[in-house]
Order: sequence, then structure tokens, then C-alpha cells
Amino acid sequence: MSSNWGNQIKISIFGESHGTAIGVVIDGLPAGEPIDFDLLLAFMDRRRPGQNRFSTPRKETDHPHILSGFYQGRTTGTPLAIVIRNGDTHSTDYAQMASIARPAHADYTGYLRYHGAQDSRGGGHFSGRLTAPLVAAGGIAMQILAHRGVQIGGHIASIGEIDDIPFDPVTLSTDTLLSPGKKDFPVQNDHAGEKMQQLIENCRINQDSVGGVVECAAIGFPAGIGSPMFDGLENRLASLLFGIPAVKGLEFGAGFHSSRCLGSQMNDPFCLENRKIRTKSNHHGGILGGISSGMPILLRVAFKPTPSISRVQDTVNFQTMEPAQLSIQGRHDPCIVPRAVPCVEASAALALLDAWMEKTE
Amino acid sequence: MSSNWGNQIKISIFGESHGTAIGVVIDGLPAGEPIDFDLLLAFMDRRRPGQNRFSTPRKETDHPHILSGFYQGRTTGTPLAIVIRNGDTHSTDYAQMASIARPAHADYTGYLRYHGAQDSRGGGHFSGRLTAPLVAAGGIAMQILAHRGVQIGGHIASIGEIDDIPFDPVTLSTDTLLSPGKKDFPVQNDHAGEKMQQLIENCRINQDSVGGVVECAAIGFPAGIGSPMFDGLENRLASLLFGIPAVKGLEFGAGFHSSRCLGSQMNDPFCLENRKIRTKSNHHGGILGGISSGMPILLRVAFKPTPSISRVQDTVNFQTMEPAQLSIQGRHDPCIVPRAVPCVEASAALALLDAWMEKTE
Amino acid sequence: MSSNWGNQIKISIFGESHGTAIGVVIDGLPAGEPIDFDLLLAFMDRRRPGQNRFSTPRKETDHPHILSGFYQGRTTGTPLAIVIRNGDTHSTDYAQMASIARPAHADYTGYLRYHGAQDSRGGGHFSGRLTAPLVAAGGIAMQILAHRGVQIGGHIASIGEIDDIPFDPVTLSTDTLLSPGKKDFPVQNDHAGEKMQQLIENCRINQDSVGGVVECAAIGFPAGIGSPMFDGLENRLASLLFGIPAVKGLEFGAGFHSSRCLGSQMNDPFCLENRKIRTKSNHHGGILGGISSGMPILLRVAFKPTPSISRVQDTVNFQTMEPAQLSIQGRHDPCIVPRAVPCVEASAALALLDAWMEKTE
Amino acid sequence: MSSNWGNQIKISIFGESHGTAIGVVIDGLPAGEPIDFDLLLAFMDRRRPGQNRFSTPRKETDHPHILSGFYQGRTTGTPLAIVIRNGDTHSTDYAQMASIARPAHADYTGYLRYHGAQDSRGGGHFSGRLTAPLVAAGGIAMQILAHRGVQIGGHIASIGEIDDIPFDPVTLSTDTLLSPGKKDFPVQNDHAGEKMQQLIENCRINQDSVGGVVECAAIGFPAGIGSPMFDGLENRLASLLFGIPAVKGLEFGAGFHSSRCLGSQMNDPFCLENRKIRTKSNHHGGILGGISSGMPILLRVAFKPTPSISRVQDTVNFQTMEPAQLSIQGRHDPCIVPRAVPCVEASAALALLDAWMEKTE
Repeated sequence: MSSNWGNQIKISIFGESHGTAIGVVIDGLPAGEPIDFDLLLAFMDRRRPGQNRFSTPRKETDHPHILSGFYQGRTTGTPLAIVIRNGDTHSTDYAQMASIARPAHADYTGYLRYHGAQDSRGGGHFSGRLTAPLVAAGGIAMQILAHRGVQIGGHIASIGEIDDIPFDPVTLSTDTLLSPGKKDFPVQNDHAGEKMQQLIENCRINQDSVGGVVECAAIGFPAGIGSPMFDGLENRLASLLFGIPAVKGLEFGAGFHSSRCLGSQMNDPFCLENRKIRTKSNHHGGILGGISSGMPILLRVAFKPTPSISRVQDTVNFQTMEPAQLSIQGRHDPCIVPRAVPCVEASAALALLDAWMEKTE
Repeated sequence: MSSNWGNQIKISIFGESHGTAIGVVIDGLPAGEPIDFDLLLAFMDRRRPGQNRFSTPRKETDHPHILSGFYQGRTTGTPLAIVIRNGDTHSTDYAQMASIARPAHADYTGYLRYHGAQDSRGGGHFSGRLTAPLVAAGGIAMQILAHRGVQIGGHIASIGEIDDIPFDPVTLSTDTLLSPGKKDFPVQNDHAGEKMQQLIENCRINQDSVGGVVECAAIGFPAGIGSPMFDGLENRLASLLFGIPAVKGLEFGAGFHSSRCLGSQMNDPFCLENRKIRTKSNHHGGILGGISSGMPILLRVAFKPTPSISRVQDTVNFQTMEPAQLSIQGRHDPCIVPRAVPCVEASAALALLDAWMEKTE
Repeated sequence: MSSNWGNQIKISIFGESHGTAIGVVIDGLPAGEPIDFDLLLAFMDRRRPGQNRFSTPRKETDHPHILSGFYQGRTTGTPLAIVIRNGDTHSTDYAQMASIARPAHADYTGYLRYHGAQDSRGGGHFSGRLTAPLVAAGGIAMQILAHRGVQIGGHIASIGEIDDIPFDPVTLSTDTLLSPGKKDFPVQNDHAGEKMQQLIENCRINQDSVGGVVECAAIGFPAGIGSPMFDGLENRLASLLFGIPAVKGLEFGAGFHSSRCLGSQMNDPFCLENRKIRTKSNHHGGILGGISSGMPILLRVAFKPTPSISRVQDTVNFQTMEPAQLSIQGRHDPCIVPRAVPCVEASAALALLDAWMEKTE
Repeated sequence: MSSNWGNQIKISIFGESHGTAIGVVIDGLPAGEPIDFDLLLAFMDRRRPGQNRFSTPRKETDHPHILSGFYQGRTTGTPLAIVIRNGDTHSTDYAQMASIARPAHADYTGYLRYHGAQDSRGGGHFSGRLTAPLVAAGGIAMQILAHRGVQIGGHIASIGEIDDIPFDPVTLSTDTLLSPGKKDFPVQNDHAGEKMQQLIENCRINQDSVGGVVECAAIGFPAGIGSPMFDGLENRLASLLFGIPAVKGLEFGAGFHSSRCLGSQMNDPFCLENRKIRTKSNHHGGILGGISSGMPILLRVAFKPTPSISRVQDTVNFQTMEPAQLSIQGRHDPCIVPRAVPCVEASAALALLDAWMEKTE
């Protein structure tokens, strides 16, 4: 039951990397919301493989076919189903996966979980390709939020040891927020971006890969949305974000840094600005007690290095229970972080819309 | 609907800091599990306030009254309800909270969310006191896991800038895992522990507070449990852990550190050991594709500094919409991290048992 | 996980017939709703045992202790917990139940389900006594609905072969709707009521029992609430109503009767009345496509005869796997239908409020 | 969120009658289950329109395209998605529906619920056509149950006032159970079947329609599966069955009849037969306390007459708020009950498999 998510906006994602198609059914969308299909395609393009030298050469048009829930240019309010055909699959690349565990991949754990019946080609349902329907669903959520004045954007906060400039948690403007997403390489500081790209290219040459961090923010989200305990905004965001493959960490506001600080440093004083309540600093990341404070919502997501590297690795054959060696041949990103930015934005949009659609009076 | 959690093991937590009682209903527990009540009390004592100089002087016996679901020393399989009476409440301490927002607390966001009808005394339902029933439920889950050979333990990984020795993610033994929990101050390295205690004491003297990190691990959890995407072990753990007040970050295995590394460093080679599949290193933290690998499960949770500090802070009165100043007088922990260790362990136990109770064949 | 219910209003019911206490946690209630405690007690009294000659002589004060979620006379919006102490338990009455299956009871199926660990005293968690917290929760939902102009009422439609006058599905007024609930014996036609009471008394004398039907209606519920397919009003109502012990059938509007009719008889023509859309007849029972039409919502619930009868019955000992005979001695209602009326009303209130709390724009 | 259902087996149904396609995503299926595609097609054919004179002349091949979750002839355990293209749509038939409420249809309530944004062509998401993916999902569940020794079958219990012979609730054999489903007209007594067909034909001639009852049973379902209160077998079955359009009633075992009887008549004595526990009669319909007893599970579902009749009907235009008249022209079944039989069987299969997949130890 793992591919369902949501309280008010329910998504059900399906598909395997090398199957016929992947897709998503979204139930609970508000009715009558216009969806700009070109905008959706442009958003999905930011995640699409085969676009530049930083990503896998696998070519996919990734065209989302809307089968239902969309009529006369607007959401109907009933389930909206999207199907994305798989095109450029090379399943012979993956023949050995049925028995040789790629390190840091889910081949072995998936084999145990599904008793060998899983579709292991290209990672099957565990593949990063399954983020395409997630991004499609999130792209729709993002448009609906935009109708309500909420903007969501992200950038690469770091690749390896190279850091971009972080978002300013207090003064963040819509322009600044959305600017990285309009670039080929989504950073704030293009100089850092060039160094990141050089690092990724070096990893490719060295048959290696590298991880990174995505920072994402939402502005315009009204104060007072969310709930204490287990359906707080952090919990909802986390339950979705950890569904993106390779995510190993998540923090809100000052996050892990706040654990090393004093209360007098981290407490954000409330203040009045144009008769609205704000905080002078924003270490809390726009969420207090699981509920939005009206300040920008800020989170950072840590991605491990792509586990698919073509150098020889030690492993085991879990069918014969013998040691084995493996050199992964397929087409892989030496760094998935650039393409992960829209995945994080999409997840944020779905989680925030889900919380917003909860009726509280 | 925020105080419900779980797929197979459902918990429903209720109560407010200064109300009559707090408690939890746990549905879906396996039937016939003996529960050692003394062990449960001892586990809850590790969270209980008023025990030593590191925590709030509020005294609570925190005795869990089991009202149902427990018969002849064993779980019945039907809902197990626990009620904990509130004793030592000083509500006059909090009178101003109904209108003056304590910085970094949920007074203001809770006011918006519940339109002023919430019980704001002592933080009400947002209070850290609500972790008492969470720990009670988790303590029961922990015993049931122990019957199945799974041990869960945690320690303070850091307070402010002072670090404890981390758990070894590969060789971690039951003794090492459970040792910190038996100490008054749950660390591996007592020398570091003394420095942490000194730092906390300094914070108290300075009317300040400090944050920290809790590391938690599970060993003996079988490989093959969990699911891809949104009901993976990380997602389940995250959705519960972010329900503990003051949590601002979460990472699994090498976590944020892995984002700065290369694939060749982070990929954990599989190997055979006594005819069992293991990994030589454990940067993945025992979870691959949302499913357990059989290696120790490792996570770290970042806690912000306790927001309640008694020095004067700037804020606003959200009823009159005027600037205000606040000096929090109540009884507060200058550092909640020591008492947070069992909260993290309890959450881990609930999430792992929940995943285990999912039938997959 | 069976004792949890609800999408927006979540209830978690706990307890056993002869345990310490029974109760319910209600999460998701709107905040700031005044609750009239006397009205709640009066409603619960209609279900309470030991009140008259038609019901079990077991005496229970059934006082609901509200532990949380209720502050200064209003709901807080956070979980509202209610505990009802068990008083007058005679567990020796039930000693044999641990191994001798009472016909038409859940002793044997419960034994299989919980592997013998269940609390079998008085039926344990399967007992009709568990409807007390259901009625408490429903009584609160009913008051919240009343604040919004919705009235819910019920009556005994039949006991055995004796029928009361049904509600008029088109002209039903608030007075007519609520009138039976104010009587000791909740019928419309007191003459039929007397015959029913005589039948029940005859059953008691003959060590037998008898079934019946409860009819329930809601008026004032706005048109347009509910959803197609699986969260329609019928589905929600059904999923709750079949949780009342002894319910064996449920129908809406013309129900089973409509299956024997023609479309030209059953189709309800729409019409305009004071510029509002209504239907001339109401065979659809106020629900079309899972969504309220604005007409009175009507349902009927069939209750089997109380299975507890004191005459000798053939059965088996499921522990020794031998034939056995049984004469049930405890204190039992020869007909539970009179006390079931508020249970049905309570369930209807919860299901309708749950649907209403779903945000659709 | 209404088109999602299930605890362990989650289905998410999408589509509109005259949209591009309809379909279903099924999550939580056990892995490694072979699916016989021809058997699935044959089962779906029993529901398919355009097959004989009893049903709408709309022709649909209704071929289910499996997009995921099925690999090398077996379920993978990850989500199984099915898409069924819509072919023979005549949307001009329905142009007026956007404003003229067809009596006993959801045009008006759907308009209110979705604020006019719904796809109203052919009833849109409210259409009986949405039972095609339900039957596809249920057909798969049925095959998985058959692998475990459970057989599910149904027949027309009545059309109008004409009754078929009911299933014998005690002695029901696999042959008897499955026999009606192999006939063109699924009854036990073909003589009654002929009279039913004559009645349906008369309704067609008279521009009218007629309702009926479907009886469904499961045999071989093991004792001890299900749960008390809200996830009992009855609740699960009901929450799904009321999702089939036109269902107005549901009963289990002796159902409404039991409400008119005495306990001494309705209590089913337990007995031993070949060292297995059974009951001598089966008025309880195989379910006690929400849990299976090992006896055949029996239920009956009441269908109202098809609301689409071509004679002139009074109604309103809900956009102009004026009286209107309507003569429904499209292609409609004068009786949907024959095609509803596999819908009921499919729902029963899904609900029983869902309960079975709940791990209880």
C-alpha cells in the first residue's frame, strides 16, 4: 500500500521503470481549477532525463496524458488520472539485477519484500523514474496553490562540498524564489553552479557520482494551516519527501544547525509589520507546532550520491548466495540533484495543498 | 485529525498539558503479547519530568492506567487504552499565553488554527507533555519487538557543540545499544556527557536553553520489511518523529553527510557473513528503497533549543495586535534532549512494529 | 484496527464489557462548539441499560468523563476523550464463555481472531456495551449538527411483525422527527408501541428474544454534501452502522422495496418549491450519487433478535472440540431495538458531520 | 477522495463515462500471484454492455490494458494499473444534462458538489460505467482468493416481484455457487429467469425500467478473519457495495427477515462436523462480530430500477431554476440487475481479500 499518499488530496502512483507506462491518479482536487498544460509540461521538463550533460542519456518525452478528471480546461473535482508512456527502455542493461544486488540500490531488499516477483528491470517500481508522475501531480498542485497566491521554488543548495547561497528566510521574494527554476542549472549563484557542474563532470569521467542538497521554500502560504502532532506540515512534507529515491535527510528552518545553538539565538521574536504578525528572524522555517506561521516555509533535503556508478563494485548474488562483482552499465546521472529540484518542489506543493484542503471550521 | 497515526498499529493521542488527563488508544496490537508493566514504567521514567537537575521541576508520577486491551497480563488484540492523570499543574503560570505569543512556541499558530478555542494552558495539546502517552505506546511496541528479537536504543549524539561518540553502524551490539539508556545521562562517552551537563547547567544559569541531536538504532530487525515510495520505513519513521515537539531535522544512515560525498564512498558493498547477506559499511542506515536490509537501522533527530527561556523576549499580543514583551516564568527544561531520547526510541519502535505488522504474502 | 472510523472526524473506541472502563477519542471536531452536557447525558440515557422492563437489569450510570478537548464549555478542536467507567459487572456470569460458544455471538470467531487472548467476559470488546461511547461521540456530533440546523431523529419501525407508522419522507417536520425520542418507548404510534412492549414481555417470559427495525432520518442537511463511489453518504453511514452489534441489514429511502418496483414508480420528479429545488416524492432517501439532495435523509436498520436467551441451546466447546449445551444466565435485553434507536441516530450524526467537514472548495 | 477504497488492498478508480478512458490502480496485492487474463476477460464480459437484449446497446470492448504491477504472468506486489479506453460514446445524447436534472440521477447533486465543473456527459464519474474497473479489480481479487480455496458467486435473487431460488446457506456447493455465472442470464431457476426476462422486455416496450436483488456468496473463506466494530466484514463489504450505482439496500444472512423473528429461530446452533466447527443453520450469513465463522458468507444487495427511462418526466432546470420536462434518449438498460451480478461478486472479492491481507499475529 506504499504508493498511496494523502489525506485530502490522495495520490496513487503506479508503474515500473521499464514497464508499459507510469502514472498517477489524484483524487480530491478542488473542482473548477484551470490547469495550464504548457506550464505543466515546462515544469515536468525540469525533471526530464536526457536534456543535458548532467543527466542520464535516456531519452523520454515524458508526455503526461490526462485520462480523466479534466474537462473543458478545468479540474472536475473527480479523480484526475495521468499516464506517461515509457519509451526508451533498454532492459538488457539490467538482466543481471534479478540476482546481483547493486550496492545502495533496492534490488536485494525488493527481492525479499516481493519474494522475487517484482519487476526488477531498471529498478522497477523503485526507480527514480517514478518521480515523473509525482512531478506531474505536484505541478498541478503548484498551479492550484498559485491561484491562491502561494509560490513554491527551489534550488541546489550544495553539490558535494560546493555550496550555493541559501535563500534568505525572512526577505525571500517571489522573483528570487522562482529565479533558479528558470535556469538550466538551478542555483542562485551561477559561479557556484559552474563549479558544481565541473564537479559532476569530473564524477562522470571518474565513473563516480556525487550527492547534494536541495533547498525549497514556499511563500504566500497563509498562517494557521496544519495541525499538531502527526499531521503537522513537517510530518506531511516528510512522509512525501522521503518517497523520493536517494533522500537521506530532511530539515526545516535552521534544522540540524539549530541543535547546536542556544534558545536565545534560535527563538524568532514576533513583530508587527504593516499590521501583520511576522517574525524578525525565521529559524523556525515558517512552521510552529505543525502549523504555518505566515513566514516563508523553508526546508532542505539531502540526497545521497547516485548509487549507479560504472566502476567495479563488490557485491553478492542473492539467489546463489555467492560473492559477485558488478559494473553497472546502463545510463545514469552522475548527480541526480539538479533533476531532484522539481521533485522536491512538487512534493512540497502536494503536502501544502493537502493541508490547505483540510476544513477546520 | 492530527493526533492519529499508523497503518497497522493505530495510535490516537489525546490530552492537554494542564487538562484532566492525557493518554493514548492503541489499536491493532498483536494479541497475546505479555507486557511487563515494571519495564514499561522504567522506560517511561526516562522521559518523566522532575527527576534531576537537567529537567523541569514539574513533578509528575506519570503513572499509566491501562483501561482496556490488556487482560491476564497479555494484550487482547483489541484497543489498548492508557490514561495518565495530570497532577502538578500551575496554570496561572500561563495566563498570558492566551494572547501573548511565546517566541518559537505554537501559541500564535494554535490560536489561528483553532480560532481561539484551544486550551492554551501550558501549550495545551501542543505541549511536550503529550510525549508521555507516545512513550507509553512506544514502550509497549518496544516490548513486542523485543519478543521478536529486535532491540531499540538511543543516546544523546550532541548537545550544542559537544558530541558523543556515534554508534558504530556495522558492529553495533545489543549491549552497546542499550547501555546509554541505563545511565542517568544517556551518552556513550561519560566524559562528553559531563561536559554536556555543564553546558546545560550554564544555560540554566544564563536563563537560556540549548538544542541537541538524538541518535537511535534498531538491531535485529529482519531484512525485507517496509515498502517503496510513501510507506517506506523512512516515511513512517519521519511521519511520527516530526510529531515530537522541537524536532527540526531527521536523517538516516550517513544522512546529510552523504550529500557531500561520492558514490564510491557511500555505496555499501554487499558481502556474505556466515551465509547471511550483510553490507561491509552501513551508510544506508539499514534501509534501501524504504525496506530494511538487515543491517542496523540508524537515524538522528535534531532538536532545537527549548523555546521556553526566562529572559525577556520581544513578541506581540495577537489579540490586541500590539508589541509586547515576555519573560516566561514556568518550570522548563534548559535542554529537553536527555528526556527526548526515549521519545525517539518509542517512535522508532512504533514505526517499525507498524511496518512489521503489514502482511505481505 | 477495527475500532477506528472516520475521514474528517476520527473516532477511536476502546474498552471491554467487564473491563475497567470504555471510551472514545474523537479527533477532528470543529473548534469552539459549545456542548450542552445535560443534553448529552439525556441522549446517552436513552441507550443506558437498567432503565425499564424492556432492558437488561444491569445498572450503569454511564457517566461520560471528558478528559480532554473540551475547555471553557467548548470544543478545543484537539482530540476530545471520553471515559465511561464500568460499574455493575458480574463476570462470573460469563466464565464458561472462554470455551463454550454462545450461538449467534462472537465468542468463537473472537477466539479465532485473537488466538484466545481476547477478554471474553461479557463479550469483551464485541459487547453491545461498546455502543455507549459511540452514542457519546454521536451525541456530540448531533449537537454540532444542530448548531448548523440539522436535526436527527429515529423511532422503532418494527418489533417482530408489529410495525410503527413510518416517517413521511417528504413532509417530515422537526417536531415529528424528534417526538419519538422524547417518549419512554420511541415510536410514532403508541398503540403499536404497546403491542411491541407486550411482545417483548412475552419473549422475556418465554426465555426468548425478538428483533426489529430502526428508522432514522435527518432533516436540514444541505444539498451537495457527500461524494460519488466509496465515500458517498450511504457508504459512510453503512461503514459505521454495521459496527453496531446485531445489525444485519441497512436500506436507504425505498430500499429493498424499490427493487420490486418500476422506474416510473421510483423516480422522484424534481420540482421547485419557494424557489428551492426539491423532489415530489422521496424514494431516493435524500441521497443521489452519494451526495445529499436536500430532501430528508432516510434509512432503516435491521436488528436480529438478541442472541442471549436463557433457554438451553446446543453448541460446542471450541477448546475441547466437543458438543456442549448452554443456558445463558446473565442479564439481557429480550429486545435491544428500543435502546438501539439512539445508537442509530448517533451513527447517522457522526457520518453526516464527517461528510460535512470535508472541504470541497 | 471518494474513489479510493481499502485498508490492505487499496483501489483508486478514475474516469468518466464519456472521457478518454476509465481505470483503476490496485495497491497492496500480494506478490507472485498468477493472473489468468482470459478468465479476467470472461469475468468482465459478464458486466459488459451491448451483449444481449437485456442491456444497453452501447458497444464497448472493455479491454483492460494492464500498465504496471504485472510481470511475467504474475503480480509484482507493486501497484497494478488497468486502463480501459472508452469507445462508443455519443455525447450529444447528454447535452441537456448540464442543466436539466434527470430524476433519480446525480446530475443535480453532482452539480452542487463540484460547483458545475464536473464532466456531466453520460453521468461522468457517477456513471455505472465506472463499475468496469471495479469488476476488473475484483476479478483479480477473485483469482487470488481462488488460489487460496475461496470461491465467490452470485445470481439474480429477484427482478421486480419475480424471485429466483435462494442459495442454501448451509449446503451451498462450489458447483451450485458458480453455476449461475456461467449462464447468459444468471439465475438458479431458469423458469424464473425466463419470466424475469419477459418482465424486462415489457419494461423496455413500456419505456420503463425495473429493479431487483442480487444474492452473492463466498465459500471456503476461513473462519477467524475480520474484526469487531468498524472494520468487520460487513462494514468493509458495505463500504464497497454502496459504491455501485443504484444500490439502495444490503443485508447479510437472514437480514431484514431476522428482524421479524425470535432469537430461538435465528440463533444458529454450533455443531461439529468431521471435527470442524460449523453451525446447523446459517442465519448469521457466515459473519459473527464482524469475523468469518467458516460458514458460507451470504449477502443480498437491492438495486433500484434504472432511473434512465425514455418516457417524459417532470423535473427542473437547475441553472435557470425553472420547471422542465425530460425524455431521456440515450441507450439504457431497462434493468441493470443482470449486469450487476459480477459487480457484486467483484466487490465481495475485494472486501474479503482486503480483510484476509490484514496480518493478525
